[in-house]
Order: sequence, then structure tokens, then C-alpha cells
Amino acid sequence: MSTENKVFIYDTTLRDGAQAEGVTFSPVAKIHVAKMLDSFGVDYIEGGYAASNPKDMAFFKDIKKEKLKHAKVAAFGSTRRANTPVEQDKGTLALLEADTEVCTIFGKTWLLHVTEVLKTTPEENLAMIEDTCRFLKENGKEVVYDAEHFFDGYKDSPEYALQSLEAATKGGADVLVLCDTNGGCLPHEVFEITALIREKFDVAVGIHTHNDSETAVANAMESVRAGAVQVQGVINGFGERCGNCNLISVAANVTMKTDKTCLADPEQLKNLKKLSLFVNEQAKLRNNKRAAFVGDSAFAHKAGMHVDGVRKVSHSFEHVPPESVGNSRRILISELSGASNVMEKLLEMGLDNIDRKSPEVREILQTMEKMEKSGYVYESADASFKMLIKKVLKEHKSFFELDGFRVIIEKRGKNEPCISEASLKLKVNGEKAFTVGEGDGPVDALNMALRRALHKFYPGIDGVYLADYRVSILDPEEATAAKTRVVIESSDGDSSWSTVGVSENIIEASWEALVDGVEYKLFLNEEKAD
Amino acid sequence: MSTENKVFIYDTTLRDGAQAEGVTFSPVAKIHVAKMLDSFGVDYIEGGYAASNPKDMAFFKDIKKEKLKHAKVAAFGSTRRANTPVEQDKGTLALLEADTEVCTIFGKTWLLHVTEVLKTTPEENLAMIEDTCRFLKENGKEVVYDAEHFFDGYKDSPEYALQSLEAATKGGADVLVLCDTNGGCLPHEVFEITALIREKFDVAVGIHTHNDSETAVANAMESVRAGAVQVQGVINGFGERCGNCNLISVAANVTMKTDKTCLADPEQLKNLKKLSLFVNEQAKLRNNKRAAFVGDSAFAHKAGMHVDGVRKVSHSFEHVPPESVGNSRRILISELSGASNVMEKLLEMGLDNIDRKSPEVREILQTMEKMEKSGYVYESADASFKMLIKKVLKEHKSFFELDGFRVIIEKRGKNEPCISEASLKLKVNGEKAFTVGEGDGPVDALNMALRRALHKFYPGIDGVYLADYRVSILDPEEATAAKTRVVIESSDGDSSWSTVGVSENIIEASWEALVDGVEYKLFLNEEKAD
Repeated sequence: MSTENKVFIYDTTLRDGAQAEGVTFSPVAKIHVAKMLDSFGVDYIEGGYAASNPKDMAFFKDIKKEKLKHAKVAAFGSTRRANTPVEQDKGTLALLEADTEVCTIFGKTWLLHVTEVLKTTPEENLAMIEDTCRFLKENGKEVVYDAEHFFDGYKDSPEYALQSLEAATKGGADVLVLCDTNGGCLPHEVFEITALIREKFDVAVGIHTHNDSETAVANAMESVRAGAVQVQGVINGFGERCGNCNLISVAANVTMKTDKTCLADPEQLKNLKKLSLFVNEQAKLRNNKRAAFVGDSAFAHKAGMHVDGVRKVSHSFEHVPPESVGNSRRILISELSGASNVMEKLLEMGLDNIDRKSPEVREILQTMEKMEKSGYVYESADASFKMLIKKVLKEHKSFFELDGFRVIIEKRGKNEPCISEASLKLKVNGEKAFTVGEGDGPVDALNMALRRALHKFYPGIDGVYLADYRVSILDPEEATAAKTRVVIESSDGDSSWSTVGVSENIIEASWEALVDGVEYKLFLNEEKAD
Repeated sequence: MSTENKVFIYDTTLRDGAQAEGVTFSPVAKIHVAKMLDSFGVDYIEGGYAASNPKDMAFFKDIKKEKLKHAKVAAFGSTRRANTPVEQDKGTLALLEADTEVCTIFGKTWLLHVTEVLKTTPEENLAMIEDTCRFLKENGKEVVYDAEHFFDGYKDSPEYALQSLEAATKGGADVLVLCDTNGGCLPHEVFEITALIREKFDVAVGIHTHNDSETAVANAMESVRAGAVQVQGVINGFGERCGNCNLISVAANVTMKTDKTCLADPEQLKNLKKLSLFVNEQAKLRNNKRAAFVGDSAFAHKAGMHVDGVRKVSHSFEHVPPESVGNSRRILISELSGASNVMEKLLEMGLDNIDRKSPEVREILQTMEKMEKSGYVYESADASFKMLIKKVLKEHKSFFELDGFRVIIEKRGKNEPCISEASLKLKVNGEKAFTVGEGDGPVDALNMALRRALHKFYPGIDGVYLADYRVSILDPEEATAAKTRVVIESSDGDSSWSTVGVSENIIEASWEALVDGVEYKLFLNEEKAD
């Protein structure tokens, strides 16, 4: 680790990230993620805990077949047990068995942990650190030493904390990683303590932070500023409790906001959003739309004034260009917006021949305002807004007509299930389509009936499903008699779109959003066919 | 603003927070949030944009009737328009019309914005800042000056940035707030620039940060360390793009990790989680379980070793005690932490003879945990929680039995109204009660039928009405087939109470909450009669 100004990215998504509540990676997912991390340009991939988990051991075997281009694989473990010769220590032997280029072991810095948790002596703990590092070095490993609770330990007893790092150094550790295991540190502490350690030791220093004070990324950045050359973290920042340091933000911040580099090929930063989405998908986590750099809202502009500013000079309201991290600018439509926003939408729809000051743009704005007053919101219902534009421009057509529907929800006794059934009468291309649908609830039943009715005429919508369904009650003082707004997200697997419906009746509001969602897709299909 | 070591919390949840994609507060929600912020001990509540939004103007009028105990209300606006006398400037006059104690105006720091976005001269911009501050001061206002893009502007031209603050100071501004409007700054820059401004100006300095680099909280903390005495932010950190500085984390970090204070009553920190949940509910946002301090996972321990460590010495794996922020350690939920809440409820119900370590308390906790796993939340459904306690203690009785219901929602043509009708069969005191109800929607119809059925037997519920009705969809990936949670607030004019129902079917979930709401009132009436 010598390249000047290079910060090494040490990814622990598959180990510390997998400690997050609700996260488990399948064996296949682990391989997928590792390959993705490798092509992105991460330097180290910590694949799992060698001693405690047979699945992790399988990963170390499988990943070898993949022949990674750039990243080194690390197996994670701990210092040997107290009063056990290192060459007989099961955990340490498991690390060798993992057969990775790198071994990362954590050891105790904080005396409280030595005496109260490990129940051993300060001296034995130092021996455990030194022995384990030396043994792994003698076996040809690159050794990363994770000094657990380093900052808490240092604040408690600087002397002992330094002794623990000396032990690792004597054992030959290649990097001393300062861990804020409990996530309690603030940035200035991390800066000061990192700087001090850099001064005292000739070995490379790394940083491992957690987000319990909501400062994990900042703590890592401050440590790097103080000279740390390795950052440990997780893609998207999930992990135990509040999560680990988010490597997405670290990679972007280091590359674009410091004079250091962290990716062999900085062009890879353009894949940042892709990487983030991919890892969430493999971990089965929802995407955070407000995620820094990669979230759907990260470059979304809502207020009219800001939109106007962005159009005039894009960096006036954007800290980095959205394309630089594989994201894109979005203009949101809302009650606060003006003509600039509408123009953006028209451009998106390929309607570049309409003037900003035309009566059409004014009519779109007026219609939108009227609709928003009666409870519609378009910022999260882009497809409905585009349908509204089509209606104003008289480019809208109905793909079917409603003759009527009836939804019945019935419960025949206290402990009986609640049954929902919808009957639907449509007219499609002059033909009558009568169908019935059942479902878990009234909207589900209605949706089933609708799909069934349209299948014969428009097989193109067969793959469309409801990806999300949200309900808000407007004017809640009026309680159940108040207006209900329903927002539905539909998807065809490749892309998704959102529509909105508003009514005093939740079923009618849902119907409206369902219809918009289906018609939007039918329009798209027609445009493609043209 | 002089109290030594006091950091003033300036909340802009209702203004900058409302810029977040997908967030709109109803007028009632705004009042609810403001009252909650006030009891928590926030110093300033920015209620909205005086000039641009009639809804915000209505808020300023309504909030006066609430007689807040501690917080000052601020109206937000900007410096006057270029080449317009301030006393004729519509935006500035709207600020006066809002009739708040505090006016906050933003002005331009960055020359790029002055010339390219505002299209005016640097000199005129300085005059705009000075004039507007002075005019508001002359009208008796406390004036907060938000220096928009301060850091970007300062990096571009320190000289002009300083001139802009001098203009505000000459105009009499009470606070100079340095805004990282684009969220691009890293912590050390914020520290250095804040320290420099503090040195140059005698006026109080504030900080306003955004999370685009994932360092908003850290940036605010560094600014406070450099001497800023006002922190602007949003509860839970939502806001435009990646969001604003999260005041939840700032309040906790300042109180527990610095020698400064920010809450008049630091004991209020124990309501931190409650505040976070409440604001998310009002904003209709999902809770982030990994949120620092207040997330459900924030003190959840998954790794065996950590759990063991926590058991041995709790602060060995926790940066702050979970109780200090109203959160709880998850592995121990059925032991000490949850028991206190239950004990509190039992006292409220007059059940003071039950021991904290009794099997009853344990059973209540276990039942609660089971229910919460299947989607119930009792945080905002106090009455349902009390009913749950009654059920466990075998003190619950049913005032009526359900024999069945059927709800029909029918639309007989595209332009016909949507009709809802409910038929209900109950058994009350052995007698059959069959009724029919109509309403604006299915739940309204069912509620009508229920009132009608019970009227003859329990005239005491005649005055009860639904004051609020909220719907959340759980597991939204499963769309309409997912579970629905309904929370109903009932009121009898004097007091109100909330109940919860969960089902795959929204009508069944509503029914459950309706029944709990009515039975709770019947219990209260019986107790009064005793």
C-alpha cells in the first residue's frame, strides 16, 4: 500500500453488511456482488467470517473460480483465543483454510472489553494480537489488523490502545485499521486520533466506521484527510444497527472532492448508481430515493425557482454533475412549480415544438393547479401527469370505456375470512367485456377483473403488475368521508411508472389510478409500434 | 441569542422538509407537527413560505390560536426583488402579513447566482440584502438571514461573500446563517469557514446543511464546534434532493456528545423516537429502521458476540444508552426496557397492583411483540394497546358480536357516482341487530351501519365521531395484496383516542379499528358509571 494519494477501498458488504437486520445474501448473490465489486474497482472484498459460517467458507472456494480482475479477497476472523497456542487455534486455522490472499483479524483495544468481555489479562490480549498477526504473516498472508473499539479504547486508555497497535506491528500487520465499532465518534475526534496514530506508526492506517451518530461517511473522510489510506465500508451503508460507512458516498467524495483517488479507473464512478441498485437488489433491500449521489431524488428539483436556476446554470443547484455518478436530473411537478417544469416534461415526451409562452403550456399549468387543489399530486405520479398533458393537447384516447363495476367485501362471521369480489363491465373496441376478479382486498379484486377483461384485446399488458400502492387521506378532519388519494406504481419488469387517483371513495380513487397505469402502458406500446 | 453554550434548534420540517419528493403536509398535519415540535423544545419553527403559498399563510394564522409554549414561529421569504423599493415588494409585504415573531429571508452570496440566475448586479444584490433586513427589523421582527450557497460563494469569491454578510449585518440581521444549499461541502471546510466568519462578525452565526455528500449532520456538528449557535434542519432529515440536516441526530449529538446544550429540558431527549415516528406518520413517510438513535435497528444486536458483550457491559457495544433517546435495546425487549412502558400504561388504567416482574406483564409484552411483528403499531394507537392489556388480563368483554357484514361499492357507468352500502349483522346482549349504512366510501358506510346498530343498546356512543383515518400499506412490494394498517382516531368532543387494525383487506382492518374505538369508549363509560 504505497501508491501516493491512493485510498484503498475495502468492501465488507458481504460480511459486516450482512449483519444488517433483514439482510441475508444467498450463496449465488454473494458471488454476483463480488464480481460486480471487482469490475467497479474495489481493492478488497471481505467475503465472510471464516470460522463461524460454513456458507462463508463455501464462498471462499467458489470465488476462486471467478478469477477476479482486480480485487483481493479477504477472510475475516479474530485474534486467537486466550491461553491457546496460535497454531492450535481453530479460528486462526479456519482463516488459513479459507485460502485467501488477505486475512483480516480483529483484536481488542479497549481494556473494558479485555477484562469484562474476553475475561483475560491486558498482557495476554497483547500476546494474542501479536501471535496471530505473526502466524498469518508467516503463512504468506497480507494481514489487515482491525483494532476493534479503537477510539473508545483510546479515549479510555491511550497507553494501552497504543500498545495494542504496537503488538500488531510487531506481529507484522500490513495495515492498522482504526475501528469506531459502536459508531459513537464525531468527525473531529476521528481526525485527531488518526493523525496521531499516523505520526506514531510507520505502518499504513485504515478506518472502519459505523453510522450510529449519522456521521460514518464524514468520519471516514476526516480519517482520510488525516492520512488513512484504507476505508472499510459497505455499498449503500447497511450493516449492524444503523449501518456501516457507505462506500458509495466515500467513492464519490474521495474521487470528486479531494486530491486523492480510490478507483483504478475513475470512469467507473459512472457505474455508481448501477452498483448501488444492484447490491440492494441482491440484498433484497428497498432503494433509498434520498440516497446521496445515487438516489432517485438526489438530483430531483421541485421548487420552481430552483428548476429555473438549474436550467440557467446547472451547477448552480447541483454539487456534482448527475451523469458523473450514473444518475440523472429529474424535474418534479408540484404545486410549487412553474412553466419551467412543464417545459422539461414536454421535452421528455419528445414534444419540443411547444413554446414556453404558448396557450397550451398555460392550459397545462392551469389544469394541473386545478387538479392539485382537488387533491392530486403529480410529483410522485409522473405517468398521470403525462396523461394530463395528452388530454390537454387533445392527444389522449381511451383504450376502453367503463360500463360499471361492483365490488363486494363480505365477512360471514367473526372468525370467517373476509372475501373480496369484483365484477366489471367494460366496452373495448365496441365489444362488451364482462369479467369477475377475486383478491385479498377490494382493489386487488378489481385489478384482477381489469387484467382479465383487457387480456384478449391488449395482450401487451399481460406482464404489467402493481409494484406499490399508497393511500393518503386528505382533510383528515372529515375522517372516512374525506377524500382519498391513491398512488399506484406499475411495472413491466424493465421500467416502472406511477399514477394517481382521487375520490371520496377509496375504491373509485384506486380505479382511476389503475386505469391511468394501464392506459399509460398502452400508449407506450403504441408509440414503440409506430 | 446569548445564553452561553446554548445551540438554538431551528426546525424547517414544514418548509424545507416539505420540499422533499413525496412529502406534503395537510393543514392539520402542519399544526400537529408544530405543537409536537414545541413540546419537544425546538426554539424556532419555520412554518412555510409566506409569499408563494396560500396554504402556508393559513398556517401562520392557525398556529397563533395554539399558543405555543416555547418555540418562536418563523415565516420564510427572500430579499426584495431587484430594483423594487422594499416597502413595495410583494414578497416582503407577505412576510409582514404572516404576522410572526421571526422572519427568515434568504439572499444570494454566490456571484454566479447574482449575475446568471437573478440577472442583477453585485451592488444591487447587496442593497437588496441590506434593505430587506432593515425593513423587517424596523417592523419589529427578529431577522434570520440565510446566506444561500454561502460556502460555494465563499470559495468562488471570499470578498463578495463577506460583503453580502456585511450587508445583512448593516441591515440589522440577528443571525447570519451559512447555508450549504447544494450539500456539496465536506466537514473540514464547514469548520474552517464557520470559524473565520465567527472571527469577522459580532453577530450570531447559524448553519444550514444538506445531505448530498452524506455529511449533513457532521457538517452541522463541525459548524457548531467552530462556534455556530443555530442549527437549521428537519426532523428525520428529509428535504429536497437527499434531504436536510437531520435534527434528530443533531439534538442527540449536541446533548450527549458535546459540552453544549440545545434543549431547554434535556429530559425531552427521551421523546426523540416518539417525535421521529410522529413526524414520519404526519408526512406519510416510512420509518427508516436504520435511522441513527431512533431506528428500530439502532440498538438491535444481531451478532452473537455483540449480544453477549451487551449482556456483560451494555455500553461495550452501545454508544449511548437506548433509553436516553426513547429507544430500546431489541434483544431485551421482553425484559426490562419494554416493561417500563407497560407499567406506565397500567398505572394510567388505574391498575397499580400488578408487579413489574409478574407473569402478566411478561405476557402483555409477548403479545405486544407478536402483534407488532404482524404489523400493528401501538405508538399511535394507545386505546388499542389498552384493549390489548385488558384482553391479556382477562378483563376484556365484548359489547357485541359480529355475525357478518357485506359492503358493496358500485359504479353503474363512467359518469355515475360511486355508491357505497354496508349491511351489518350484530348480536348485542343476545338480541340480533341488522342494519344498513350508506356513506361516501366503504368504511364510512360500515361506520354508519355500526352506529345505527348500537344506538338502541348504547346511546352513550351517539356523540362519538371519527376524527381521523390513516392508512399505511405494509410490505409495499406486494402491492395491493400486501397487509394494510388502518389507524382511526375517534373523538367525543372532549377527548380523543386512537385504535389500530391490520389485515390484508383494508375493509377488515378498518372494521377492527372501528370496533376497538367503540369498545374503548363503552369501557370508559362503564368505568365512569361505576
